Amino acid sequence: MVYNYSERMSKMNGAATREILKLLTRPEIISFAGGFPATQCLPQKEVQEIAHELLSEGRATDSLQYGTTEGFVPFRQQLIEYVKTAGIENISLDQTLVISGGQQGIDLMSKTFLDKGDVVFVENPTYLTALQIFDSYQAKIVGINADKNGLDIEDLENKIIQYKPKFLYCVSTFSNPTGKTYTVANRKEIASVTAKYNVMVLEDDPYSKLRFEGESVPSIKSFDTHGNVVYISSFSKVLSPGLRVGVAVGDKEVIRKMTICKQGVDVTTSNLSQLIVYEYLKRGYLFPNIAKSLPIYRERKNAMIDAINKYMPEEFKYINAEGGLFIWGEFDAPINTVELAPEAIKHDVAYIQGQVFYPDGGGLNTLRLNFSNATVDRIDAGIHRLGDMFKEEIAKLK
Amino acid sequence: MVYNYSERMSKMNGAATREILKLLTRPEIISFAGGFPATQCLPQKEVQEIAHELLSEGRATDSLQYGTTEGFVPFRQQLIEYVKTAGIENISLDQTLVISGGQQGIDLMSKTFLDKGDVVFVENPTYLTALQIFDSYQAKIVGINADKNGLDIEDLENKIIQYKPKFLYCVSTFSNPTGKTYTVANRKEIASVTAKYNVMVLEDDPYSKLRFEGESVPSIKSFDTHGNVVYISSFSKVLSPGLRVGVAVGDKEVIRKMTICKQGVDVTTSNLSQLIVYEYLKRGYLFPNIAKSLPIYRERKNAMIDAINKYMPEEFKYINAEGGLFIWGEFDAPINTVELAPEAIKHDVAYIQGQVFYPDGGGLNTLRLNFSNATVDRIDAGIHRLGDMFKEEIAKLK
Repeated sequence: MVYNYSERMSKMNGAATREILKLLTRPEIISFAGGFPATQCLPQKEVQEIAHELLSEGRATDSLQYGTTEGFVPFRQQLIEYVKTAGIENISLDQTLVISGGQQGIDLMSKTFLDKGDVVFVENPTYLTALQIFDSYQAKIVGINADKNGLDIEDLENKIIQYKPKFLYCVSTFSNPTGKTYTVANRKEIASVTAKYNVMVLEDDPYSKLRFEGESVPSIKSFDTHGNVVYISSFSKVLSPGLRVGVAVGDKEVIRKMTICKQGVDVTTSNLSQLIVYEYLKRGYLFPNIAKSLPIYRERKNAMIDAINKYMPEEFKYINAEGGLFIWGEFDAPINTVELAPEAIKHDVAYIQGQVFYPDGGGLNTLRLNFSNATVDRIDAGIHRLGDMFKEEIAKLK
Repeated sequence: MVYNYSERMSKMNGAATREILKLLTRPEIISFAGGFPATQCLPQKEVQEIAHELLSEGRATDSLQYGTTEGFVPFRQQLIEYVKTAGIENISLDQTLVISGGQQGIDLMSKTFLDKGDVVFVENPTYLTALQIFDSYQAKIVGINADKNGLDIEDLENKIIQYKPKFLYCVSTFSNPTGKTYTVANRKEIASVTAKYNVMVLEDDPYSKLRFEGESVPSIKSFDTHGNVVYISSFSKVLSPGLRVGVAVGDKEVIRKMTICKQGVDVTTSNLSQLIVYEYLKRGYLFPNIAKSLPIYRERKNAMIDAINKYMPEEFKYINAEGGLFIWGEFDAPINTVELAPEAIKHDVAYIQGQVFYPDGGGLNTLRLNFSNATVDRIDAGIHRLGDMFKEEIAKLK
């Protein structure tokens, strides 16, 4: 039969993500396309130990029976402490919500605030799946200009006046895709200008704990005196993406609305997953394990930078991230990374064309490289293949 | 600040569910309000054993790393076999999607098909949270009349012609809230009349394996020759609700659209949860454990029926379910179960007012009683309290 889908489906083809996932299953390809944490950093031993105890006789009901939508109360109490590491103080229990991975926070925020035709602001470029989520709510996505310090505040204010957006979405620390971190001054200005115009902010922070260089910075939420910032974080990159656990904090009225939305979406986050993360934090495993992981990420990032300097054409300009998972680059030459992506795959190497991160389809000369999930040798070999290919393309232009 | 929520939030207050959850945390109250499986039937030992092996060295990556949105391939292959127990044959891999609990299937189906103002059909009465989900998509919900055999096919066909619905939602076996099961003839007619008019069906089947009396019946999906039925099932009632794992099967094009929606909703279902269910099925634990659980459910259901016969006023008419979790009843007298629900709580017993299951707010004289999660003694004591209260109310009417 011919299916009569909802209007939103016409913009949702899932093609980019699907292509990425397919690539990752072919072992001969060196993939810089994903966003996986380093597999060797997944804490197998600790999770095994914790799961065994959680599932022991007389104790397993908490993991296996239904729980409340808001999440396991002792875990939420612990998360109040956890978000203090992002400078967020004075959060009460009713300002917390356990979510099934950070991304669910984007969906719940969208459901809570967006009607068809409403405007959402994003940094230009931003997280691909966030764009897909906003499309699924039929929002109008407007990109805000950005530079090395963060968002262009003048552009932000002008566009707020022009578009009256429902909220601004941003990945303020080690952004996906650029790897960039907003300065403290920029964060304060974002908090202040959005408060001035009663614009909500959705601050997405999956990466800030993966800092292997430089100084940490407090979240935008830490400068929120107005109740307009919702902060989401995730345990996917620092513990395990397979568990699907994250947290949202914000004004209690907004968190209540997001909780009502979550009731309809998945009832509750897996109790077993929640309790594994809870015990992992309680036993003090998180920060020592992150400390052990950081040298691995630093080494891989440095290997990628070295390989870029060695193999890529001089027209390739990149941002040297101080943390996170990604190196972002652009060609100072008319290189079309969309057209060349299938060509790279023929050379057994994969990147993500930067265009997919732009709401307006710009960024044809940009690309994102993930360094976290390949060994140093494969990073060198993969960037070598890419460098050769791009140098050949540059040569054709001359 | 004053928050400017989406229009959908005006209909979503979450009040009924919230009240239910609150009650369940007060131990002095005998609650027939929930829908929990019997805690003693949760397979602690088996899940502990499986989790320990899944999380062992060299094997844990599958559980802890990212996976594809569609779900773990060997699990999906196994689910093709599993749905054969509902009479569903010839399903291919691309017709399966692992979901984070059955309820996520309702959300994904809605996202795939519903625009604001579209019509959804439900049985009158139906699953409360399904109504909330359809409200969240700003659909118009229309109730279809039903009797002891299932849906009123004439009413269904007339309303299809009148309303041109996007889909019909129904819980065809041991319905929530009525406990009723559609006859085989009724299922065939539903498949046939919806196919005739190209109307989709979302068949929600969380309960059919919990049959402790009577003969099993094949799913509506098993009579689908047109590709218009999506079938969802869940492991919440037969294994564990805390894991949040279910399955959707349907036409591959529809499943592909639902998968794209799921990418934006939670990326993927917890890999650890998926793999626990996979191993649980693979090791052949499911059906023997269900067989061990059924006498417990049967005993509790019988205890509730006995207590109803003993304590409730003769004006209370009920449906004697052959499986599932619920007894549905109505008063053949002007008893308002909405007004009396807080009164019952004063007597330390809780039921759900039937009104919340009606899209049009009818059913003021109805109520739902859950028998699965209270012991026989507490069932007797709780129905005794309810019976005394309702008899007193009936006496006031005379």
